[in-house]
Amino acid sequence: MAKGFQTLPGFRDFYPEECATRNHVFDTWRDLAHRYGFVEYEAPLLEPTDLYTRKSGDEIVKQLFCFTDKGEREVSMRPELTPSLARMAAARQRDFKKPLKWFSIGQFFRYEKQQKGRGREFYQFNCDILGETSPAADAELIALAIDLMRTLGFTEADFRIRLSDRSAWTDFAREAGVPEERVTEFLQIIDKLEREPAEKTAAKLEPLGVSLAAVHGLIAHGEAAGGSIGAIRADLAARGMADFVQVDLGIVRGLAYYTGPVFEVFDIGKGMRAVAGGGRYDSLVRLIGDVDMPACGFAMGDMVITDLIRETPAAKARLDEALRRSRALDVYVVIAAEDRRAEALGVVQALRGAGLRVGYPLVEAKVGRQFQAAEEQGAARAVIVGAEFPTLSIKDLAQREEKASQMETLLADLGVAG
Amino acid sequence: MAKGFQTLPGFRDFYPEECATRNHVFDTWRDLAHRYGFVEYEAPLLEPTDLYTRKSGDEIVKQLFCFTDKGEREVSMRPELTPSLARMAAARQRDFKKPLKWFSIGQFFRYEKQQKGRGREFYQFNCDILGETSPAADAELIALAIDLMRTLGFTEADFRIRLSDRSAWTDFAREAGVPEERVTEFLQIIDKLEREPAEKTAAKLEPLGVSLAAVHGLIAHGEAAGGSIGAIRADLAARGMADFVQVDLGIVRGLAYYTGPVFEVFDIGKGMRAVAGGGRYDSLVRLIGDVDMPACGFAMGDMVITDLIRETPAAKARLDEALRRSRALDVYVVIAAEDRRAEALGVVQALRGAGLRVGYPLVEAKVGRQFQAAEEQGAARAVIVGAEFPTLSIKDLAQREEKASQMETLLADLGVAG
Repeated sequence: MAKGFQTLPGFRDFYPEECATRNHVFDTWRDLAHRYGFVEYEAPLLEPTDLYTRKSGDEIVKQLFCFTDKGEREVSMRPELTPSLARMAAARQRDFKKPLKWFSIGQFFRYEKQQKGRGREFYQFNCDILGETSPAADAELIALAIDLMRTLGFTEADFRIRLSDRSAWTDFAREAGVPEERVTEFLQIIDKLEREPAEKTAAKLEPLGVSLAAVHGLIAHGEAAGGSIGAIRADLAARGMADFVQVDLGIVRGLAYYTGPVFEVFDIGKGMRAVAGGGRYDSLVRLIGDVDMPACGFAMGDMVITDLIRETPAAKARLDEALRRSRALDVYVVIAAEDRRAEALGVVQALRGAGLRVGYPLVEAKVGRQFQAAEEQGAARAVIVGAEFPTLSIKDLAQREEKASQMETLLADLGVAG
Repeated sequence: MAKGFQTLPGFRDFYPEECATRNHVFDTWRDLAHRYGFVEYEAPLLEPTDLYTRKSGDEIVKQLFCFTDKGEREVSMRPELTPSLARMAAARQRDFKKPLKWFSIGQFFRYEKQQKGRGREFYQFNCDILGETSPAADAELIALAIDLMRTLGFTEADFRIRLSDRSAWTDFAREAGVPEERVTEFLQIIDKLEREPAEKTAAKLEPLGVSLAAVHGLIAHGEAAGGSIGAIRADLAARGMADFVQVDLGIVRGLAYYTGPVFEVFDIGKGMRAVAGGGRYDSLVRLIGDVDMPACGFAMGDMVITDLIRETPAAKARLDEALRRSRALDVYVVIAAEDRRAEALGVVQALRGAGLRVGYPLVEAKVGRQFQAAEEQGAARAVIVGAEFPTLSIKDLAQREEKASQMETLLADLGVAG
């Protein structure tokens, strides 16, 4: 750019096409949340930094857009929503009937090393059920995630839910004699199991008194898992969703606060990426807000899912249709006689008043160029205002058929309620 | 709060009711922009600080949430959108047919002294037409603003468009011999005219060689204004909107970059607040992006308009209806026999698959409590799954009428497409 203004690294400009793509994802998120009876909320984009360090330790500061504000407060652009949700739910817990079924769509910020599929800002869909300990709540979230993926155009050939339970690992650690204060470290080793060489994992497990074979043994027996996992699977089976679920105790999820079942929506194409993830966090609301409130939730970011939509033909087709609709006018008003501009503006106004998306030439233009503009803007029909006003002409731009109309009957002739 | 986590001063938590209120405003903004043929875009929330100081001088830094990021960049949470828009439009100006009709809905941040109706964060609707010098573009924006207010439920009794033209004042200043480099200062004096005592204004005008009487003289003759103002009024009159417009040269708008017609949407109730404002800025895209692109636009924040909606009965009624819809379930599935839970989950799934908003008890509950939950969640109907499954019962919760149904015919019996 001539004067050097550029978007900051890791931040995105959403030109109309990218914004419509984003909105297709947002609309689907919101539609599914509504179908599942969730209500929307939003929290501040800027929060006190210690809201995040309380839960995750000072380590997280390295990844925060944090600073000292003009009032000497230590503040951070939010890297995630759950701590804010815990604060909000705790502060007004008496005002709402349990369980709360809440969702949110918003933007988040992490100062990360730049790499494909990771920005320094991203949008995230957060969906949580608070105030319910039953695995039925976990199942409701997983069902929502599955239906969300299906509504976006994905099938059993594209994704799986990988379901696990952290308590299987905390029980295992206790039985193996891992000291209480090292259980988090143990879980982090399990979290990296798939991504690190076996020798490295074995070496890290050894000082904890755990063998790699014992770890693999637990994973191998995962399918037999009862308890929460069994209840969740039975619930999803009753919804006809059994085939989407795969028990995989190798999943523990990175975040420190999970306490029970955890899951990922996992791309089974060549990408093999986690598209969404979540789990149960029964202690976080107490930690943040000093109120006992069991909870579970999941989040889906916009970046991986958007890549996946673009790579998957059926999902891409739905996106393309959404893009077409996002930019298409219903009617383009052609001003065939410039001295009828005032009357044409009246037509524009009448059509917009009926809820239609309407374009017209802001300044005098040749009729041919106006029809070209109508097609470029995806208008289904043109209404032509000329010397014959109040007689008008309606042209179907796909069928290339034209019929006469009158100002008084125009809405009816277009098949629109006035 | 017990552990001391609080929302930062000037920032808002959007609990479900506040979020639904926000979404009612957002939905109306988006609906009107679409009807007017605008397409949506979005820019980053964080931008290089000099994007704002370039245009407004270092003075603006006092109002910015600005900081040095971990890569030693001077960055700011955006206080407004127009500089980002100018950057984006200039960077890809060859890719789009002119005029561009672009809108955006996003959040902004200003470190302001706290007062009613002003937060440190707010949402704003921005609507701009780029690449067109004709006053027809200004008129299209004003018409959109008027229709937006009407769609929210406001009438001629509630608001006016105050229309002015900065070039009337720059012409006046030139004729009065105000030095070129002091014209901005002169405009700022005019901007404060209504809010400051006459003596103070006269004293400030004197060193510029301008009398207060001459200023009032220009304002008194405003109604006779021709040029852009005349063209805009004629355009709006053709749309049947003449009665909403009031020429008032006392309006010059605060921002430095306006170059021609400017306007405000003005509450004529007791509040007398500016609800929205904008104008023509033909030089900004060159300043930011080194490309000549005339432009005009306006912005509406969420805070004043939301206050006004709550104070105005007709607008409040539309909001209340939107709130009711936002939280209402279509159907609540009552599980009358717990051993039919699996079948009930199948019913839930079938109904959601048809696009309905569906709730059900996550855990066993007495039938009476389930009906209570259904009413609390605004469900229009209950579907009762009991021992008689696959025979079901549909209850209209308003009419309190019940009829039998079958699993196979349920969607049809509810009048829903499968």
